[in-house]
Amino acid sequence: MSRPAQRRPEYHKINRDLFVLTYGALVAQLCKDYEKDEDVNQYLDKMGYGIGTRLVEDFLARSCVGRCHSYSEIADIIAQVAFKMYLGITPSVTCNNSSRNEFSLILDKNPLVEFVEELPAGRSSLCYCNLLCGIIRGALEMVHLAADVTFLQDRLKGDSVTEIGITFLKKLDEKKYRRKK
Amino acid sequence: MSRPAQRRPEYHKINRDLFVLTYGALVAQLCKDYEKDEDVNQYLDKMGYGIGTRLVEDFLARSCVGRCHSYSEIADIIAQVAFKMYLGITPSVTCNNSSRNEFSLILDKNPLVEFVEELPAGRSSLCYCNLLCGIIRGALEMVHLAADVTFLQDRLKGDSVTEIGITFLKKLDEKKYRRKK
Repeated sequence: MSRPAQRRPEYHKINRDLFVLTYGALVAQLCKDYEKDEDVNQYLDKMGYGIGTRLVEDFLARSCVGRCHSYSEIADIIAQVAFKMYLGITPSVTCNNSSRNEFSLILDKNPLVEFVEELPAGRSSLCYCNLLCGIIRGALEMVHLAADVTFLQDRLKGDSVTEIGITFLKKLDEKKYRRKK
Repeated sequence: MSRPAQRRPEYHKINRDLFVLTYGALVAQLCKDYEKDEDVNQYLDKMGYGIGTRLVEDFLARSCVGRCHSYSEIADIIAQVAFKMYLGITPSVTCNNSSRNEFSLILDKNPLVEFVEELPAGRSSLCYCNLLCGIIRGALEMVHLAADVTFLQDRLKGDSVTEIGITFLKKLDEKKYRRKK
């Protein structure tokens, strides 16, 4: 990665439609390449993972978030800082278990499907936006947080909301991730 | 295409790195799919064409550009309005012939290659950003302007600048494209 040391914030912004349509072309290409939806989903996740591992450095540098001391705080940062910064939306966050390591991001709007009215014919198991899960997983792994990230609900599949589930897999080392006072 | 009737301008903006890395994943996938660089280039152009035909409506609605009465004016709008709006850069424009139907867009910066140091091994004829040519071609065709759009120079290939050539193929119907007074 070579990049100028300082860039103006607006230099980072592009029109979203270009991204959304390019993403659609990528998904269409993978649907051509792989017969099974599961393979497309897996490939999108894998691609996203690679992107996440590269985006995270930029995210940490620009967001100036400190170290977190709970999974809850991490989930909030993903929703309120990362989604806002990269997609211009802020999902709501719910915690799904008493161990407080399972969270859901509820997407009221999903810009990635803006031009998509329904899943392609014969592609009912496609997780169209699975790149996002891979990105989150890859970015978390780069800060030593193993997680499962999957779509739990998807409006494109007839669900009432779009919901991304994040399950953190290891006990958080509270000392390590304690926010600096 | 379904979209809300009114959206705030900032709602259109996303972080560019996400787009640039996703585009890189798309090119990498096509390089896996097609052995010959020419086929990858052609496919990127074809994908871009489809994107351009869909973007143009949005562009015309949001840019509020009037009808143009010369190819020169059209080239300026592509560089100064469209590139600025979608990629946040403004290429310089030169006219390359006395018939005034051949133009070059000179890209001082090319955000699409920000994470790309060199072309992949064995891919010396790859036009990495050929999606852009397809987008321009598709968008122009939707306003009844046939054009050839190709990379004439590319920094990724060792050229000193990146240059996109646009050749308008038909005599412009001046009456039709005359700007409204």
